[in-house]
Amino acid sequence: MAIKKVGVMTGGGDCPGLNAAIRAVVRRAHQTGYRVMGIKNGWKGLLDINALELDALAVSGILPKGGTILGTSRTNPYKHEGGREKLLRNFENLGLEALVAIGGEDTLGVAATLWEEDKFPIVGIPKTIDNDLCGTDQTIGFDTAVSIAADAIDRLHTTAESHQRVMVVEVMGRHAGWIALYSGISGGADVIIIPEVPVNFHDVAELIMKRHNRGKNFSIVVVAEGAKIHDEKGERLIVRSTQVDEFGHVMLGGIGEVLGKYLTDETGFDTRVTNIGHVQRGGTPTVYDRVLATRFGVLAVDLVSEKQFGKMSALKDGKFVASELAEVKKGYRLVDEELYKIAAVFFG
Amino acid sequence: MAIKKVGVMTGGGDCPGLNAAIRAVVRRAHQTGYRVMGIKNGWKGLLDINALELDALAVSGILPKGGTILGTSRTNPYKHEGGREKLLRNFENLGLEALVAIGGEDTLGVAATLWEEDKFPIVGIPKTIDNDLCGTDQTIGFDTAVSIAADAIDRLHTTAESHQRVMVVEVMGRHAGWIALYSGISGGADVIIIPEVPVNFHDVAELIMKRHNRGKNFSIVVVAEGAKIHDEKGERLIVRSTQVDEFGHVMLGGIGEVLGKYLTDETGFDTRVTNIGHVQRGGTPTVYDRVLATRFGVLAVDLVSEKQFGKMSALKDGKFVASELAEVKKGYRLVDEELYKIAAVFFG
Amino acid sequence: MAIKKVGVMTGGGDCPGLNAAIRAVVRRAHQTGYRVMGIKNGWKGLLDINALELDALAVSGILPKGGTILGTSRTNPYKHEGGREKLLRNFENLGLEALVAIGGEDTLGVAATLWEEDKFPIVGIPKTIDNDLCGTDQTIGFDTAVSIAADAIDRLHTTAESHQRVMVVEVMGRHAGWIALYSGISGGADVIIIPEVPVNFHDVAELIMKRHNRGKNFSIVVVAEGAKIHDEKGERLIVRSTQVDEFGHVMLGGIGEVLGKYLTDETGFDTRVTNIGHVQRGGTPTVYDRVLATRFGVLAVDLVSEKQFGKMSALKDGKFVASELAEVKKGYRLVDEELYKIAAVFFG
Amino acid sequence: MAIKKVGVMTGGGDCPGLNAAIRAVVRRAHQTGYRVMGIKNGWKGLLDINALELDALAVSGILPKGGTILGTSRTNPYKHEGGREKLLRNFENLGLEALVAIGGEDTLGVAATLWEEDKFPIVGIPKTIDNDLCGTDQTIGFDTAVSIAADAIDRLHTTAESHQRVMVVEVMGRHAGWIALYSGISGGADVIIIPEVPVNFHDVAELIMKRHNRGKNFSIVVVAEGAKIHDEKGERLIVRSTQVDEFGHVMLGGIGEVLGKYLTDETGFDTRVTNIGHVQRGGTPTVYDRVLATRFGVLAVDLVSEKQFGKMSALKDGKFVASELAEVKKGYRLVDEELYKIAAVFFG
Repeated sequence: MAIKKVGVMTGGGDCPGLNAAIRAVVRRAHQTGYRVMGIKNGWKGLLDINALELDALAVSGILPKGGTILGTSRTNPYKHEGGREKLLRNFENLGLEALVAIGGEDTLGVAATLWEEDKFPIVGIPKTIDNDLCGTDQTIGFDTAVSIAADAIDRLHTTAESHQRVMVVEVMGRHAGWIALYSGISGGADVIIIPEVPVNFHDVAELIMKRHNRGKNFSIVVVAEGAKIHDEKGERLIVRSTQVDEFGHVMLGGIGEVLGKYLTDETGFDTRVTNIGHVQRGGTPTVYDRVLATRFGVLAVDLVSEKQFGKMSALKDGKFVASELAEVKKGYRLVDEELYKIAAVFFG
Repeated sequence: MAIKKVGVMTGGGDCPGLNAAIRAVVRRAHQTGYRVMGIKNGWKGLLDINALELDALAVSGILPKGGTILGTSRTNPYKHEGGREKLLRNFENLGLEALVAIGGEDTLGVAATLWEEDKFPIVGIPKTIDNDLCGTDQTIGFDTAVSIAADAIDRLHTTAESHQRVMVVEVMGRHAGWIALYSGISGGADVIIIPEVPVNFHDVAELIMKRHNRGKNFSIVVVAEGAKIHDEKGERLIVRSTQVDEFGHVMLGGIGEVLGKYLTDETGFDTRVTNIGHVQRGGTPTVYDRVLATRFGVLAVDLVSEKQFGKMSALKDGKFVASELAEVKKGYRLVDEELYKIAAVFFG
Repeated sequence: MAIKKVGVMTGGGDCPGLNAAIRAVVRRAHQTGYRVMGIKNGWKGLLDINALELDALAVSGILPKGGTILGTSRTNPYKHEGGREKLLRNFENLGLEALVAIGGEDTLGVAATLWEEDKFPIVGIPKTIDNDLCGTDQTIGFDTAVSIAADAIDRLHTTAESHQRVMVVEVMGRHAGWIALYSGISGGADVIIIPEVPVNFHDVAELIMKRHNRGKNFSIVVVAEGAKIHDEKGERLIVRSTQVDEFGHVMLGGIGEVLGKYLTDETGFDTRVTNIGHVQRGGTPTVYDRVLATRFGVLAVDLVSEKQFGKMSALKDGKFVASELAEVKKGYRLVDEELYKIAAVFFG
Repeated sequence: MAIKKVGVMTGGGDCPGLNAAIRAVVRRAHQTGYRVMGIKNGWKGLLDINALELDALAVSGILPKGGTILGTSRTNPYKHEGGREKLLRNFENLGLEALVAIGGEDTLGVAATLWEEDKFPIVGIPKTIDNDLCGTDQTIGFDTAVSIAADAIDRLHTTAESHQRVMVVEVMGRHAGWIALYSGISGGADVIIIPEVPVNFHDVAELIMKRHNRGKNFSIVVVAEGAKIHDEKGERLIVRSTQVDEFGHVMLGGIGEVLGKYLTDETGFDTRVTNIGHVQRGGTPTVYDRVLATRFGVLAVDLVSEKQFGKMSALKDGKFVASELAEVKKGYRLVDEELYKIAAVFFG
């Protein structure tokens, strides 16, 4: 009897820890007696049949490396004509008996649909620096992204103090404020603005002015890119979204810059805005992410062995368990209120 | 009515995150309406009445700093004649209504006894880089210690490869293998030896030789300081403990060096031993430890407000809850078997 | 006889290493038998008489800290009516016999004029992350700024590869390309664009397209904020400078974003722009900057002892020597052509 | 006419920056029109004919990696019977027209002899974390080693303060105190003991006691592994060298441990010893080392083009120049007295 072949792929935005997960999948699969095919560039590689066998050498030394040796893409097979059929056919032609998909909302959403509609033998591993995926309490890449953001805030702190400035730091987080909250708490932020808690920019300005009146002559404001900030009339501050279109790519700045302008006008304090952007999603993963990715990878192969398809590796209530892939379609996992209240203890 | 005064102190070995916890205690206490007295040098400061008021300025900027601004000591009041009485009296003389004790097994053990025998109004915050405390799934300092150890292993990896060497890395962990397991998994260790799983050094040597025979010409061996390693006759490898006595302090090396010698003799491979020692317990805390310490600190003050004495802040099953202080007396929390099995997937 | 008093101050933009320099000045001055007064917030503190004595305790533990414990400002006494007179009078009133000014072009320019016109007893220490100061081969802050920029490029590299993207990284450097060249060489940049070498954006696009045609499907473009890039008609790409005015502060982005837009249009490649901004000037200094700042500080006090006023600490041809303060007025020190040619070896 | 082939190899102990140098050699050589053969494992690879062609892909992505992709060894061809003849013959058989040897005292010493005796067409690149090579002011690996050591000292600082301890840190440097001096100055050491300046341990103990009497209750002592420390009778403290022999490898500890014991006995202070060992020679290089290695690599190929054999890339008086390889045989380059005096400003 031929040895079983399992595929593994990474889709969506890259993040630190993907390679650690790929390595864990390959090593556990070999131990279990499977061969592993690496699918290149997410779903695209399954549409194009772009794959290579991953032996032990292929994953040697990749554990501490950022990015993904398999490449990634945002290709959605359901948005390509005949994509679903092609995908199912190529999967069979490659001789695969199961697929491990490492991805976020989009990639795992496709995985969930493939399972629901076609009983496609798939298991997911959740990743996104934003940590806003339903079905798991933590995703690969989040701890590293927060660490990078917090390190930037640490560095900005000394400048803020020396120059008596207001430092606005925009971090990633379009739908949920996880990165902003964690990096803000870690970096000793004086205000943290997240999508889940809309604020009026007057209140932010007032908080900063009160703080300065108390003798603190610098402030750190951490703002998630998806923060909802309103002006005096209750209208939402407009992020320069048209320019995003014109440029054909996401612009730097956004809400951080807009807020910075308002704060300058309102408080009169010397204000600077920083947005470390894509730096948050690259480079060597933290220990937390390496262990998380390794455990998720081993668990995913175990789910394949047990034919528990339509599931994904997850961390829930401190335990490594299998979640239903369908959960990723339930919307964004928002920050818990308790954590926000803790952050707020340190505001002002 | 006078404002309530709460004391806070740090005892036992220091670790990254203590200052973050102190800051959180002080900020939350102020918000709640308490004044805070910092007791210096652990229990010693309560025996000597060495204390100072902690205002907002005192804790400004300490969040990212390693060590403890309060100092620490290993003083145990029960081992001083009249220590208990003096401690109770001084506590009253300082006008304190509750004490937040940040410490490990020893400090919190004393705290538990004070609560049990004298209904002393105390709340604990668990810290130890070893992560082996009962009553909580994670302690302050562990994530940082693991990060430092893993960073060292990353660095040793490139040397091991370039020189085709066996690198033995001894990490902290006298009773439990948490640091060894996490740093070993993170650093891609080829063998991890922990106190919970005694091994024969022959088996370690054989695993390395098989690995080299498969074409891998370097190996990383991570060993916890409390690892139990036996020789061919089943006798435990002797750590140079007499020299510890002679020197009046814990010697460098220990089991790592002894293992290194055996491996050199047995395998003939070029072997080097490293023990980064106290570097594991110093310096700026990771984001994980900063958030953990902050949450533990806020929770401890909330327990004080609610007069839930005899408890400690804890993380259990992914939730921040109050544990009984008495739990810390139950012995060491050992690594879970499942995690060790995951690490073992990557051995050899 | 009264003990001599020496003043020390920091002016202009802050950078890592200022505290190391202040500490060195204080420690060397004490050893020499001087008392030291710290002037707060640059020249402003001398106009306002805002100063404090710096004893050993005041500088204890500041060596690894970013920023400046003295604060800083961009105040220029010559631009204040009666500023010069007030400064001279206050200097005398504070009982100072010499001043050590740590600063860049502006601060040391004022120092030079004070020496030239009033024989004011002053000695300078050169700092600027841009490294473009005449009179010394290296300034405090540069090595750290480059390290931060290079670390960001390392992180962007893994994302670039995984997504097959062009990553444009804008770094500081308005007049000279030192940070861009060093961080670009360190980060393995495929093109580096600096103020000293104007380029046509077509040539940049072509270079990237050739590179991708050779099979390299990602690129790293490092661009200094002051880079001169021209379009097809030979007109310089316009940085959104009006918005700088409108916002009342320097905007994020600038040339990097503009270049990103052009490259997207011209090459069709997926392009992302990052500008880590003020993160480049904060946080703990590198070893190189700590040693440089320490040596500059010690040397400055020695120059004071020898009454060699009108000079500054400098590194020239690998030696620590005294330069004339007047040199800082000679314009910007541009990158040496040889270094640019070396960087260009790796282009494409 | 056939394209010229140049060989490149790395010998001796590995260090961060070797891969950056290899990459620079290969890229510059390709640009110049040469093919490049990588010789594996130092001189051993030339004796065994173990070599592979290095194309652009082979050196892609290696710039930030520690270690050496070519491997290294301590093999000395002159210590093998017929080694010299074999080496010359194999060099010819491989069709090489020049060799770039990256190494320290031993490797470049052999290179110098090959040039002197056989006019072997060789060019050197100097590397050693110890920075004690004659003929250049700086060697590849030194800046990174110092950075790692200083980072460890930073971490130990917080523990020293919290526990009121004396922390003895042993760093590399058998013959010269470069690493000790630079990391000690950077880490704010209270005493630095280097091979060039023998000391009596009584004087060290006295300095520490005076410091503690002044109210400083912790101390950092940095000691180079080759430090010469004498006891009350003027006899040198004995490092446990016999144990080194017995173990078959260099033991941890050494002079640091011995000094720690003496200081404990003499001062009564709580003392801890740390030796981070091989961690100092691994991992990603600093920006300084990346640029240095890149410049040395480009220069070495240029020397080959110009047939300037018997030379090595060097940094002298701040300039990149060619040195005579013969210089490396002149003994060790010791620390300059001026730098030691600057370090001593901060003692006590």
